[in-house]
Amino acid sequence: MHKQQKVTATLLTIGDELLIGQIVDTNSAWMARELVKQGIQVVRRIAIADDRAAITDALDAELAAVDVVLMTGGLGPTADDITKPTLADYFGTTMRTDEKVLQHVKSFFEKRKKPMLERNLRQAEVPEKCTVLFNEKGTAPGMWFEKAGKIVVSMPGVPHEMMHLMETQVLPRLEARFSLKPLLYKNLLVGGEGESFIAEHIKDLEENLPPYIRLAYLPSLGYLRLRLTCNESDREGIEAEIESWSDKIAQRLGKYLVSQNDLPMPEILAGMLTKVGLRLGLAESCTGGYLAHLLTQIPGASNYLQGSLVCYQAEAKIRLLGVSLKTIQDKGIVSEAVALAMARGAAQTLRADIGLGITGWLDKEGDDKAAGGTVCVAITMGDRHESKTFHFANDRLRNKELAAQNAFLLLIRFLKAHFLG
Amino acid sequence: MHKQQKVTATLLTIGDELLIGQIVDTNSAWMARELVKQGIQVVRRIAIADDRAAITDALDAELAAVDVVLMTGGLGPTADDITKPTLADYFGTTMRTDEKVLQHVKSFFEKRKKPMLERNLRQAEVPEKCTVLFNEKGTAPGMWFEKAGKIVVSMPGVPHEMMHLMETQVLPRLEARFSLKPLLYKNLLVGGEGESFIAEHIKDLEENLPPYIRLAYLPSLGYLRLRLTCNESDREGIEAEIESWSDKIAQRLGKYLVSQNDLPMPEILAGMLTKVGLRLGLAESCTGGYLAHLLTQIPGASNYLQGSLVCYQAEAKIRLLGVSLKTIQDKGIVSEAVALAMARGAAQTLRADIGLGITGWLDKEGDDKAAGGTVCVAITMGDRHESKTFHFANDRLRNKELAAQNAFLLLIRFLKAHFLG
Repeated sequence: MHKQQKVTATLLTIGDELLIGQIVDTNSAWMARELVKQGIQVVRRIAIADDRAAITDALDAELAAVDVVLMTGGLGPTADDITKPTLADYFGTTMRTDEKVLQHVKSFFEKRKKPMLERNLRQAEVPEKCTVLFNEKGTAPGMWFEKAGKIVVSMPGVPHEMMHLMETQVLPRLEARFSLKPLLYKNLLVGGEGESFIAEHIKDLEENLPPYIRLAYLPSLGYLRLRLTCNESDREGIEAEIESWSDKIAQRLGKYLVSQNDLPMPEILAGMLTKVGLRLGLAESCTGGYLAHLLTQIPGASNYLQGSLVCYQAEAKIRLLGVSLKTIQDKGIVSEAVALAMARGAAQTLRADIGLGITGWLDKEGDDKAAGGTVCVAITMGDRHESKTFHFANDRLRNKELAAQNAFLLLIRFLKAHFLG
Repeated sequence: MHKQQKVTATLLTIGDELLIGQIVDTNSAWMARELVKQGIQVVRRIAIADDRAAITDALDAELAAVDVVLMTGGLGPTADDITKPTLADYFGTTMRTDEKVLQHVKSFFEKRKKPMLERNLRQAEVPEKCTVLFNEKGTAPGMWFEKAGKIVVSMPGVPHEMMHLMETQVLPRLEARFSLKPLLYKNLLVGGEGESFIAEHIKDLEENLPPYIRLAYLPSLGYLRLRLTCNESDREGIEAEIESWSDKIAQRLGKYLVSQNDLPMPEILAGMLTKVGLRLGLAESCTGGYLAHLLTQIPGASNYLQGSLVCYQAEAKIRLLGVSLKTIQDKGIVSEAVALAMARGAAQTLRADIGLGITGWLDKEGDDKAAGGTVCVAITMGDRHESKTFHFANDRLRNKELAAQNAFLLLIRFLKAHFLG
């Protein structure tokens, strides 16, 4: 079997819905991440229509440029899905019915007690000259084609089906097929300042990086990731060298460093709360349940999250959280004093060790225009407490995201200062 | 000025972060939607690296094929952003400093009380031969180039900056530049059955559609959109014809039709609740605040949402929502009886007209493996109530999404049945 060193790939997504903007393509980011980890360089991501000529033109162009084309989409049971016959023609082969897939499709519908239709049965038809990638998560199988040393894989566009096929079949096959050098990388999570400031802050370190280690700035709403990468995984001592640069940068970042772990903020928090064995209770006003939603995306959240009291009305803040009317009148409904009272109310009502309260105006065009974008967060535990006011200058949805990430950041710092210092 | 009929576009996204999968590209979907509405056909979406050769190769290829190339990304202040100098070279022009942009960048940092750096000042440098698209939302301006009748626009990749530039400058300029026929379309929101079933249910209607009206199936988690489109907006009576087909399909869909409005489920609910003047209170267990989060994404949610009691622990369900221990012991924590008690508790505690309770196991691998994916939803208002049990077969995150959309669907049907029939 032919083995080679540098392997390049194109991600090709098929579907009118992408070109009319009906759906956001989350598949490509996931696929790119997995391929890069294995040492396959993604050079292009392309989305085209459910159109024969567009598919064959794209395959011609990409197969001339890269080693692997991973296609998703266009394998559904409706009339507008034409990827499968187009691929059969492209590779000069006819269709056959795959018995294993056919039995699977039948039992898929039986189990769900849904009527099976002629068009569903056709999902068991596959091109003669391809390796069928059996899809136990859905009814459309994946297909693996080879032509002149190049590889074309077609997978369904449904994210969990694609992911399952990638993990169980496509990635292992690619690994066996090529001699891959996995990418080495290390991410640092940074909060509290933006891209330009951090870049200046670590400028001399960045300038002294060896040529085979790259530093990238990956900004998100409310935080920033610094990414050190090296694609020469066979270089002697390279892992230790990356670690050492990561440590140097981490030290320089000081208070701006959130974590040297490559995890989303809620997962970092989950890890910390589990480690210190403390239970969290939330009182949310402007974030409207978003903090609790993010924390409960993680399996096992019930081990550290008591719950959240989403009180969208002042009356409920008084009645359920014990915020005093006087505090609201004196300090305003968006104030650190109210946030703190909410945090205390959450800890008490939800019987949590730590309470977090958040109140704010997300919209620029609110009752109080001057205060639009103002968000107050408070954290309390016993007689320790902390609070902070933020001013965000964006629209409602972005301000909500910023509020959530900054609330998590404040909580991470609180835990670090008091328990993990 | 040259005017033409059919205008095609490519969306070209620049940035290593897309090829290593660090971020999900939400820009392209938004841009595609806006362009399609204006009558511009998006034929390709491409993502490439921050790499000179990749950018110029892509421009060569796309300008040979389409009328307009809309680029995003690669305009940041850090060293890896090279789009601007590459474009200047590509269009054979030098750089100049734009005074208006320079003043804007300076005041941008003054207002935020952030130190301004040399690299930020360079954001005011623009190619000589381009129309500067002033960006009041950020520090990187957009750029509009023309060459041999083709148009290339470069915009920052930050979503709200790109959206603002598109809305205020790019779309109006494209409209003025070309004679566009806006796409006519009509969406129907469908719930309760999947793509294959619905396709079969309306098969004969679909077969009788005139050739200039297309029907597409756009499945999401928990619901489905049917989209009727026609790009012959000058055809006589076409709007009425699309409406009439939409009505025919809606009638056939019957109970599966959720709405003939092109809105997300939470916005449909917001409209209904506002119309009937009823206030909603939520009690969330497995969705962990996600229902409240989705509803509070919409401005004005305080007009119909009282709040949500996210009770992640059985103890809190008993103490805060008044669920009886006996019900939990007899029926199980995931049961319609508990969901109904939670709904009643939410209505009472939050002083809402309608209560919605939801409890379930999202993970397949839970304490009770057989029950993984089981979710119970209940709705109550006075002496009227309704409840339903769902069995979802996916992973945690997808099951949460399915739980939320199906809870909304149940509530929409409840409101239709009792108030909007």
